[in-house]
Amino acid sequence: NVGFGKTPQNRSISVDALKPSDTFARRHNSINPEEEIKMAQYCGFDNTNALIDATVPKSIRIQSMKFSKFDEGLTEAQMIEHMKNLASKNKIFKSFIGMGYYDTYVPPVILRNIMENPAWYTQYTPYQAEISQGRLESLLNYQTMITDLTGLPMSNASLLDEGTAAAEAMAMCNNILKGKRKTFIIANNCHPQTIDICKTRADGFDLKVVTADLKDIDYSSGDVCGVLVQYPGTEGEVLDYGEFIKKAHASGVKVVMATDLLALTVLKPPGELGADIVVGSAQRFGVPMGYGGPHAAFLATSQEYKRLMPGRVIGVSVDSSGKSALRMAMQTREQHIRRDKATSNICTAQALLANMAAMYCVYHGPEGLKAIGQRVHGLAGTLAAGLKKLGTVEVQGLPFFDTVKIKCADSQAIANEARKHEMNLRIVDKNTVTVSFDETTTLEDVDKLFKVFAGGKAVPFTAASIAPEVENAIPASLVRESPYLTHQIFNSYHTEHELLRYLYKLQSKDLSLCHSMIPLGSCTMKLNATTEMMPVTWPEFASIHPFAPVEQTQGYQEMFENLGDLLCTITGFDSFSLQPNAGAAGEYAGLMVIRAYHLSRGDHHRNVCIIPVSAHGTNPASAAMCGMKIVSVGTDAKGNINIEEVRKAAEAHKDNLSALMVTYPSTHGVYEEGIDEICKIIHDNGGQVYMDGANMNAQVGLTSPGFIGADVCHLNLHKTFCIPHGGGGPGMGPIGVKKHLAPFLPSHPVVSTGGIPAPENLEPLGTISAAPWGSALILPISYTYIAMMGSNGLTEASKQAILNANYMAKRLEDHYPVLFRGVNGTCAHEFIIDLRGFKNTAGIEAEDVAKRLMDYGFHGPTMSWPVPGTLMIEPTESESKAEMDRFCDALISIREEIAEIENGKADANNNVLKGAPHPPSMLMADSWNKPYSREYAAYPADWLRAAKFWPTTARVDNVYGDRNLICTLLPANHYEEEKAATA
Amino acid sequence: NVGFGKTPQNRSISVDALKPSDTFARRHNSINPEEEIKMAQYCGFDNTNALIDATVPKSIRIQSMKFSKFDEGLTEAQMIEHMKNLASKNKIFKSFIGMGYYDTYVPPVILRNIMENPAWYTQYTPYQAEISQGRLESLLNYQTMITDLTGLPMSNASLLDEGTAAAEAMAMCNNILKGKRKTFIIANNCHPQTIDICKTRADGFDLKVVTADLKDIDYSSGDVCGVLVQYPGTEGEVLDYGEFIKKAHASGVKVVMATDLLALTVLKPPGELGADIVVGSAQRFGVPMGYGGPHAAFLATSQEYKRLMPGRVIGVSVDSSGKSALRMAMQTREQHIRRDKATSNICTAQALLANMAAMYCVYHGPEGLKAIGQRVHGLAGTLAAGLKKLGTVEVQGLPFFDTVKIKCADSQAIANEARKHEMNLRIVDKNTVTVSFDETTTLEDVDKLFKVFAGGKAVPFTAASIAPEVENAIPASLVRESPYLTHQIFNSYHTEHELLRYLYKLQSKDLSLCHSMIPLGSCTMKLNATTEMMPVTWPEFASIHPFAPVEQTQGYQEMFENLGDLLCTITGFDSFSLQPNAGAAGEYAGLMVIRAYHLSRGDHHRNVCIIPVSAHGTNPASAAMCGMKIVSVGTDAKGNINIEEVRKAAEAHKDNLSALMVTYPSTHGVYEEGIDEICKIIHDNGGQVYMDGANMNAQVGLTSPGFIGADVCHLNLHKTFCIPHGGGGPGMGPIGVKKHLAPFLPSHPVVSTGGIPAPENLEPLGTISAAPWGSALILPISYTYIAMMGSNGLTEASKQAILNANYMAKRLEDHYPVLFRGVNGTCAHEFIIDLRGFKNTAGIEAEDVAKRLMDYGFHGPTMSWPVPGTLMIEPTESESKAEMDRFCDALISIREEIAEIENGKADANNNVLKGAPHPPSMLMADSWNKPYSREYAAYPADWLRAAKFWPTTARVDNVYGDRNLICTLLPANHYEEEKAATA
Ligand SMILES: Cc1ncc(COP(=O)(O)O)c(C=O)c1O
Ligand SMILES: Cc1ncc(COP(=O)(O)O)c(C=O)c1O
Ligand SMILES: O=C([O-])O
Repeated sequence: NVGFGKTPQNRSISVDALKPSDTFARRHNSINPEEEIKMAQYCGFDNTNALIDATVPKSIRIQSMKFSKFDEGLTEAQMIEHMKNLASKNKIFKSFIGMGYYDTYVPPVILRNIMENPAWYTQYTPYQAEISQGRLESLLNYQTMITDLTGLPMSNASLLDEGTAAAEAMAMCNNILKGKRKTFIIANNCHPQTIDICKTRADGFDLKVVTADLKDIDYSSGDVCGVLVQYPGTEGEVLDYGEFIKKAHASGVKVVMATDLLALTVLKPPGELGADIVVGSAQRFGVPMGYGGPHAAFLATSQEYKRLMPGRVIGVSVDSSGKSALRMAMQTREQHIRRDKATSNICTAQALLANMAAMYCVYHGPEGLKAIGQRVHGLAGTLAAGLKKLGTVEVQGLPFFDTVKIKCADSQAIANEARKHEMNLRIVDKNTVTVSFDETTTLEDVDKLFKVFAGGKAVPFTAASIAPEVENAIPASLVRESPYLTHQIFNSYHTEHELLRYLYKLQSKDLSLCHSMIPLGSCTMKLNATTEMMPVTWPEFASIHPFAPVEQTQGYQEMFENLGDLLCTITGFDSFSLQPNAGAAGEYAGLMVIRAYHLSRGDHHRNVCIIPVSAHGTNPASAAMCGMKIVSVGTDAKGNINIEEVRKAAEAHKDNLSALMVTYPSTHGVYEEGIDEICKIIHDNGGQVYMDGANMNAQVGLTSPGFIGADVCHLNLHKTFCIPHGGGGPGMGPIGVKKHLAPFLPSHPVVSTGGIPAPENLEPLGTISAAPWGSALILPISYTYIAMMGSNGLTEASKQAILNANYMAKRLEDHYPVLFRGVNGTCAHEFIIDLRGFKNTAGIEAEDVAKRLMDYGFHGPTMSWPVPGTLMIEPTESESKAEMDRFCDALISIREEIAEIENGKADANNNVLKGAPHPPSMLMADSWNKPYSREYAAYPADWLRAAKFWPTTARVDNVYGDRNLICTLLPANHYEEEKAATA
Repeated sequence: NVGFGKTPQNRSISVDALKPSDTFARRHNSINPEEEIKMAQYCGFDNTNALIDATVPKSIRIQSMKFSKFDEGLTEAQMIEHMKNLASKNKIFKSFIGMGYYDTYVPPVILRNIMENPAWYTQYTPYQAEISQGRLESLLNYQTMITDLTGLPMSNASLLDEGTAAAEAMAMCNNILKGKRKTFIIANNCHPQTIDICKTRADGFDLKVVTADLKDIDYSSGDVCGVLVQYPGTEGEVLDYGEFIKKAHASGVKVVMATDLLALTVLKPPGELGADIVVGSAQRFGVPMGYGGPHAAFLATSQEYKRLMPGRVIGVSVDSSGKSALRMAMQTREQHIRRDKATSNICTAQALLANMAAMYCVYHGPEGLKAIGQRVHGLAGTLAAGLKKLGTVEVQGLPFFDTVKIKCADSQAIANEARKHEMNLRIVDKNTVTVSFDETTTLEDVDKLFKVFAGGKAVPFTAASIAPEVENAIPASLVRESPYLTHQIFNSYHTEHELLRYLYKLQSKDLSLCHSMIPLGSCTMKLNATTEMMPVTWPEFASIHPFAPVEQTQGYQEMFENLGDLLCTITGFDSFSLQPNAGAAGEYAGLMVIRAYHLSRGDHHRNVCIIPVSAHGTNPASAAMCGMKIVSVGTDAKGNINIEEVRKAAEAHKDNLSALMVTYPSTHGVYEEGIDEICKIIHDNGGQVYMDGANMNAQVGLTSPGFIGADVCHLNLHKTFCIPHGGGGPGMGPIGVKKHLAPFLPSHPVVSTGGIPAPENLEPLGTISAAPWGSALILPISYTYIAMMGSNGLTEASKQAILNANYMAKRLEDHYPVLFRGVNGTCAHEFIIDLRGFKNTAGIEAEDVAKRLMDYGFHGPTMSWPVPGTLMIEPTESESKAEMDRFCDALISIREEIAEIENGKADANNNVLKGAPHPPSMLMADSWNKPYSREYAAYPADWLRAAKFWPTTARVDNVYGDRNLICTLLPANHYEEEKAATA
């Protein structure tokens, strides 16, 4: 309540009152000062600082954090001005570089209503299927689009980029052949970054990668598990791999084909050619180049290998009422289960971008896509024909789709001439350039190119004038005959109104941060502020090819420098690599850095990695991918790593110790007191400390990995640093390292890069991601977050995140056992409530509580991880007290519902928890034969009467779906049959 | 279905196939060629052209339309490029001009989630309360904010701009005094545009406007109905009007006060000073300046005059279950009912902008606003203090809030110096400038201004250094003591997450074009394409002060020229005025043009306006506002204007005939055959033809007002030309005229403007809107629509709009009587179905059908207008066949529900129509005692099972609300009491 009446008028004005009053931190950190003190006191402390002092171990506490730039934090308006300034330093040249990245028109309806729409971009991975049917449908569309275009029946719903997708396929070949053949061949018509990533990745799997000219490929060793070819090739050639594949198969060799979706609208699909695994990127289907990413990559394969597919797969199942419903198939994330036996560690993928690409297909439909494919091909043909006419250069003779290869006297001179017209070509070698066309290429561009290649000679024709003479360059045997995208969904929404409504229809089924808090432990679902998101869709950031000359990308470069510097200050490290494009990719990269370090010192034998049993599944998976031998260490009753066990393990493996992987605060939500000692033990035994930065939100400004003693750490920028989760990606997982490790940070074969700031020596481990700076387009999000918060705002955020978790734990502790706390009884930024007891007292499991929470309008917390039968709650600093109270009220109310079962008032098998969630179709069905009332099911809390988010399906049956794996759209008539059946 | 298998490969490439395939028209016009021919045949024609030929009278049919620019239509990408180019020609200087327009920070969360969000901007006026509770709440917030800040208890939910709000207040004064006093005094401390608008408006009301210095105001004539003063004054002075108001009241004079909302955070509110009516603009509360608009204006008054308030008012009522629910109060728009007795014609208002301003308040809260107000005041004080110290100029001595008035030797020289720093000052006269501060002003700006005014002299201090010496300049008697914005809603959502969720909570209650078609006859709810919307929020369009020097706004000017030219081609007129900012404002402006024309010829007596009874209520209201005498003419049985009646009326009033107002095609949805003859009759009798362009969507490319014979016409750009309705505004109502009327087009007192293209002579009628080009910021929407569609695309749109209406009429005619058709049995772009019969057969009224449609997920068509007891359906060209079929299926299904009543199977008083709409709370209540089933109520059609938009409240009681008028937020405890009462 306000009332200025009583304040006497202040007749003079303070300078502070003349500064902008609307600082960003107070919009992000959601607890106001009055609430803060009350909450701290409720937790038993005088104030927040007292709580923090009691929580963060003194030995690792830093006194303060200070940035060399942005220390005070910019206002939102100042930030936008700064970003505009950076943007103006990026030059948008028209790109003809190709190599897996092509300009595209993002349909504005998709741009605004998916990419710029918080209701889509703030969603979490669809672990809770009943409140995620919208994006599940869209991802199923994605899988269907991939299977249709590639001609293979199974696809996942995105990998990180084309290069890592190829590496995943390589690992699959190795697996298919059970590790018995240790050579993998890569045709040298693959993109250079693809080749480098596979080579790097092969190292850890102890595979030998051989690159060879297609004609020289030889399987006679009998040791070849797979071969990777590209279709069309990196320099544009379109080859018929039919015979090649037969030969490979005859030698028991699996064929992986990297391909291009747009080309497949007119080319015979890889599946029809016999390929076993097909990979590629869906970028050119309406996803901005973004200086390298984020983009959705894909991997498709046959039914035979479907259970070896990496990544997330969406499948069709049924709900408790027998109706079709979607969910993630084989959900129990493989790396979670398989740990050290894992061959892939991918978690966060590229869901948002997969959705964009799928919607691009939905919008254009098969005929629209084919028209684009044919136009691109026709324009390329026109260029080739014109250049032949012109005779100033030599055009390569092989068939092509969108890329023309040209021999010339001086490729650099040609490229320079092109740049004068603000066009970028690819320089292949001194005498070779390629010109790749895309959806945005016009006849006028072709005319400009004629001028560029004419070398001053007059061009006596135009693209339009010679087009009628141009012949289709695709060999008859490779012309696509088979239909694709015949499903209703790809043939219905071709006008903007229809697509808009389809997007909204799906959106309305999905709970996101626009609705309520999503308190997923270990996921840090915090505010993704609009100002942070705005630059992402500015053309000066979005429309840049990753291999554009660096002098055209000075805005990006300046941001990288600043961001690297800020992250170094935050983490206490000396250098950062921005290449890994997810947390798990960061883990892998970080361990590879450690590996390279040991190797550089001749310590080839150092390959033991100690990992606590409480670690996230990606930790052992990543270690396994680096060829490390995993040694598990346990935790004590309080959930802390057993230091003595660590010591014993480290000493036992002293000679071969490579690393320890440790999450801090622990995955149990506790600041372990012994963390500095643990680091010391590892170092004393010759090992390096890898810190998993997933819980960085509890460290910023209070301590840091570097200060604690870690040597490497990845940051999930999509957790602590505000990149939204996008319904399962994108993310970014840059890694920071201490000085001695900086030389080993990843490089890139096309654009040279390494640590930021740059170390003195360079001994890069290889290449981790397809793009030099990973998903550069989303880095402005984290950058602006940090710059607007300033060092104090960030420190406050950590404190509030911890305060909030403690407040919630306190509110809940009388109702649920709270597992694991620190020495002073506090938790870190998240905590675990234990539901295991209810199994006996009421037959209730964690899943029942998570599903019932949906009826209260909430997304369940992280379920059964890291401890089965529990829920892990992480509120973050950007949830308000009111929202947290509502969430606690819901859980307390659910506890009372459990009590009803315990005391026999409710049926143990048929109760409001087992019946949850309750979608409207169930609640307003004519027949109702539950032992509880409709209103009790629907409106268990008052606030739901004012507005409620409704689950759209009853509980989805995971087991049924996994037994009957269907991972593409059902034929339209399925639904009618189902209706008839359930009527 | 696709299948390329059978097409033999086309070996050569056509040039057409190399042009962009993704033209805009095919995304906007939603019927594809195969559907089109089927639909035409279904209507009994060989193809669409045959249907059109049979529908549009030959005599008025134009052969083709050709644009001098954009004739072929740009692609979306080309359009954006063109707009970027225009944008680059607008220069964003920092504005210190003031005069009712101030820069402001639009909170990004509001920018993205309201202004750039189709779920908000595509809503219609909340006539259907049950599916509009979200924006109704937001508009109630707006009214509460206005009443709190002004200190008067009643407010409407927006007027068009501050100037017209003042004119509306003037008309109210006239009304309050029942037209018995004919003088209205305006203090010359009002903004010049406010004065001019009032003067122009007074003309029609036969009021005498006297402008006078405050000290010279004199009521002794006894003829003064009201006086308008400004607080703070246009040149910044803050005067205590307490005594002044007492004096006016003593003479029976009503006091209107124009004010500034930000100033009221620190100044004593006008209500406490005794003002009767308070007006102003809410622009500076987070709405971009946009070169003049759109912005929400307000009008607040006492309880006594509430029923005389113009514009839309939101009020609290109850629904059929007794729960609080909102709806438009006194809904039957006054001009609709009062017609020629109306004193205001406002319909389309500024809902979207009112929502933005209200949310700005919600986000900042009372303390945040006060901090901004104090900062702005403090910075102004700092400037004044510094200038006094500097001594190079003279600072006016009166108290001020945000505007400092300065005497100097050469104001132009000072302004020029300021421009060098990209700052715009207001030049008041040769020796006077004012400097107005706003939310975006910084200490650095003040320092720059010191330099500007120092005239080369060194400035020995900084703003920061002198700030502590600065004293608050507000006199103690005018310091605000009373609290404001104490309601919970203004004190809860101060963090971005909280506001985001509040926005989404409201949004989830409102049906918009994102959900389904909104087939409102006469409203043309067509696609508002994203590309059209994008430039609107670019700073180069959004951040420009309307009175910025024209040389800084060349991008805007070029667009105005192009748009004027395009609109002239489309309408067959010679010149356009872009000033009127709604359809009704256009009507009024157009009639005033006619009036000025007659006056210029000495025809002072020509004041009769013939208007068909079928006209929209705004027509007679506008005519009345111009002082015209209205003569009504009837329609024949077929709904056509009775030509003989027109002839008789025209001849009878031959000497005094001013104009005919006619809508074409008619409001009955018919192309009247005699329209050319009607125009001739009017002209033959010395009158001018005013055409209401609301139905322009049925004319573009097929005929035109100019070709038909009209002399003036307004266009609702928010209908035919794609400006979204924004939940009740903004809109734009430019008027086009024949050459002889062009000199009379409105001008502007601050920035000279007139017809586009400019006529030779200028005899402007006066000023219509506060800004020279009305709501310039939204003109890019119509401009891009026209430029992307090209002449063919637009003509196709008209044809499809007509085809669609005929298709729907055909589908429905066996189920409902279709009223009024043309000579060949076709309708225009809309049609009317007659429900009157069901009153007798089933007790069912139009409202019941409209409410039941909500259960089918649809917004009802226009209800009971122009014919009571009917529904008027307008599909537009951008609805797909699938969507229209769904809508027809719904109506046919409802017809079956009515039949159940007719044949006695359903109860006449208690049936699914009378019970509609059915919100979830009703459908899943424990008790259900309707005679029909829950599922029958909830899922009357199959498609609703896949996704359904739910009404959030049961049927709202309008009568109750109007009897118990409550137009501000209820105290928070009300809801608890209600809960207790209904529990
Ligand atoms: C502790 C921990 N480590 C690693 C990861 C993997 O990160 P990403 O999903 O970005 O690959 C997660 C993801 O939730 C995590 O919680
Ligand atoms: C026929 C007709 N004339 C005039 C108007 C008034 O236009 P506006 O609401 O833009 O003032 C309308 C609005 O619906 C209309 O239908
Ligand atoms: O795998 C996870 O995203 O936690």
